[in-house]
Amino acid sequence: MAFQKTKGTSDMFPEEKSIQSKVFNSLGSVARRYGFLEVESPAMENMETLTKKSGEEIRSQIFTLEKRSKEELGLRFDLTVPLARMFIQKQKEITKPAKWFYLTRMWRYEQPQKGRLREFYQFGVEIFGSSSPKADAQMISVAVDGLRELGLTKDDFFVKLNNRKLLQGLLESITDKDTEELIRIIDKRSKIGDKNFIAELKDLGLGEDEIREICVMLKLEVSEIEKHDMNALAKEGYEELKSVLRYMGGRSGFVKIDLSTARGLAYYTGTVFEIFDTDEKFRSIAGGGRYDELVGLFGGESAPATGFGMGYSTLQLLLEDKGLVPAADLSPEYYVVIMDGADDKSMQIIDDLRKSSTVEHDIMGRTMSKQMKYANSIGAEKVIFIGPEELQSGMLTIKDMRNGNQEKKRINEITSS
Amino acid sequence: MAFQKTKGTSDMFPEEKSIQSKVFNSLGSVARRYGFLEVESPAMENMETLTKKSGEEIRSQIFTLEKRSKEELGLRFDLTVPLARMFIQKQKEITKPAKWFYLTRMWRYEQPQKGRLREFYQFGVEIFGSSSPKADAQMISVAVDGLRELGLTKDDFFVKLNNRKLLQGLLESITDKDTEELIRIIDKRSKIGDKNFIAELKDLGLGEDEIREICVMLKLEVSEIEKHDMNALAKEGYEELKSVLRYMGGRSGFVKIDLSTARGLAYYTGTVFEIFDTDEKFRSIAGGGRYDELVGLFGGESAPATGFGMGYSTLQLLLEDKGLVPAADLSPEYYVVIMDGADDKSMQIIDDLRKSSTVEHDIMGRTMSKQMKYANSIGAEKVIFIGPEELQSGMLTIKDMRNGNQEKKRINEITSS
Repeated sequence: MAFQKTKGTSDMFPEEKSIQSKVFNSLGSVARRYGFLEVESPAMENMETLTKKSGEEIRSQIFTLEKRSKEELGLRFDLTVPLARMFIQKQKEITKPAKWFYLTRMWRYEQPQKGRLREFYQFGVEIFGSSSPKADAQMISVAVDGLRELGLTKDDFFVKLNNRKLLQGLLESITDKDTEELIRIIDKRSKIGDKNFIAELKDLGLGEDEIREICVMLKLEVSEIEKHDMNALAKEGYEELKSVLRYMGGRSGFVKIDLSTARGLAYYTGTVFEIFDTDEKFRSIAGGGRYDELVGLFGGESAPATGFGMGYSTLQLLLEDKGLVPAADLSPEYYVVIMDGADDKSMQIIDDLRKSSTVEHDIMGRTMSKQMKYANSIGAEKVIFIGPEELQSGMLTIKDMRNGNQEKKRINEITSS
Repeated sequence: MAFQKTKGTSDMFPEEKSIQSKVFNSLGSVARRYGFLEVESPAMENMETLTKKSGEEIRSQIFTLEKRSKEELGLRFDLTVPLARMFIQKQKEITKPAKWFYLTRMWRYEQPQKGRLREFYQFGVEIFGSSSPKADAQMISVAVDGLRELGLTKDDFFVKLNNRKLLQGLLESITDKDTEELIRIIDKRSKIGDKNFIAELKDLGLGEDEIREICVMLKLEVSEIEKHDMNALAKEGYEELKSVLRYMGGRSGFVKIDLSTARGLAYYTGTVFEIFDTDEKFRSIAGGGRYDELVGLFGGESAPATGFGMGYSTLQLLLEDKGLVPAADLSPEYYVVIMDGADDKSMQIIDDLRKSSTVEHDIMGRTMSKQMKYANSIGAEKVIFIGPEELQSGMLTIKDMRNGNQEKKRINEITSS
């Protein structure tokens, strides 16, 4: 269909855009106060860059561009890959840690559904150059504080925290099967259900005892982990996990240790987390973790990295659910009714008012009564009337649209307030 | 080349992004004070939508997406087309005038050159629903005030203003040749030079007298236009032009009437303008005009419209040239040096500080002296030292990094300031 918007995209009219700007400003201000700096990457990247991390299977989800030169291009589907590329491009000159955040959009060719469009917006941060659990704690704290800044509380969301080393180590002490494949299956457990989960483990050649042990292990509480049999890798992961919790300070109250949180992507190497609404009604609101090998994989000098992404669509659903969607800012402070014979001089007053306020006036040739209706319909706070008489006396009539009160004020009293 | 950015795009590292945000915030705030509301459209549109306005010749400049379904998609190359589509989609419910602005990016497959990339950013406004010269004046005023908000003055830029009806009417009184084709040639005159300009007019079949008359006409000063032979169309355009000037008030001082400003695009129907730096060293900084037939062309109920686009690349060049590029905001207010044994309690103080300030602390395991060097390198304004002693006494040492002064302050004095 021509002249319709593209499937899986959404038009942002003033109301949607204003709400998004307010949400993004809140999230951005939190990231800034943590010392993160905003960056942006091009919409398109070379296909080799895009597919390097996740392998060829990601190809079907990429919006590829028709080839015009030797370059094979696709639209970015996340920001981690482009920002890793950017980091590498200036790796030598950038002071570490590089703490970056973004509030931008990306594209994924998928079947559109509620809370998941082909064009979507994300807030996210990446820290390049620090291997410390302090970096992981800081990055998760930004996600938590960002949500709190929007009015969400412990009643609304929680963090599932895990560590890939811990999970891998614990799996290694149960079975000698390929842990990467196992983690992939664990990751999709909630999607495919317990029955299919067990079936897939069987297909991988795991015995019943091993499967039982894995199921028990995945449900361990924090206090029980310590008692569990841990190899060196598991111990390392466990220490990291505890450090992250410690450095999160009071925010650790938002955290639930969850050994089954794996974040399928093979490139995670340590801390992994996901944020869900308390009732887990929606998809994960944010997710991320440590990926110490990605920069090296892209040909950069090996550098540790950690980060997360937070989708705007799911966040919107959660804010709506909790009645926390901010009000859109669409109304002007002043609407000026210019009466016959006052055109030119009025423009001067409007100019003065506009130095600090939003001012509307007629450009439609509406009658005075229609202008009043219009001013009301757009939610103007105050209406000012300017006619030849007002210009001569220097006294303007101001009507407060919220209570209907009218008062007279000197021109310079209004424009200098 | 893999792992390189795509040709014709630019990475926005923190400095570039911060500067752009400041410039965009200035421009956006001007648009807002004029009552414009921000909107955003999807990156991709149907090819039929994209090519409708400018015809098939635009196709070669569109980044097209590989076809995955029946939809043939391309990346938007301007915002006028997508916003016209959006306006039509809600034409019935939207109160008129719809005054929209955007600060966003788009794509054009062209040979990249200085000030002209394949991925580029624009500020712009569109007004749908008003046929009044007041709308044109307001739209141009936003462009002028936007540039002034950035510190640019009459010494730096000027507006070339024209009216398509006036130009067409004047041409009709000189020749009976196709004026649309003539306007196309006039539009590219400065690019192709006078010699080629005259040659092309000859090719169109114009006689020497006609060509001479056109050359004289294009150079008419405002005062001379009135004396020129005008048909009804020319008169209508001339009245519009004078009204636009009048409604621009004091800003008319930025305007130079220039009959040769045509804005090639055939869809302009009235006011047309372009903004240039005073010396015309750069491409046009902004350009736009009235396009009363576009909404109807897209199948909407006929609606007048006017708007402009301002490219960020050329604006950047001009700001650099005039030494007006805003300073990037990259430095934190506080850098906190946490000494051994003060970790946990320090995080509480940092949390308190972060409620209103940007605070950095070490996540790299640096020694104290390296932390001081680092704090200095990132331009931290103040460094706070927290050790067990400070925690016990409740008195923190604060070092002002600009003058080296140190003072002691109570913890709550700092965190509540």
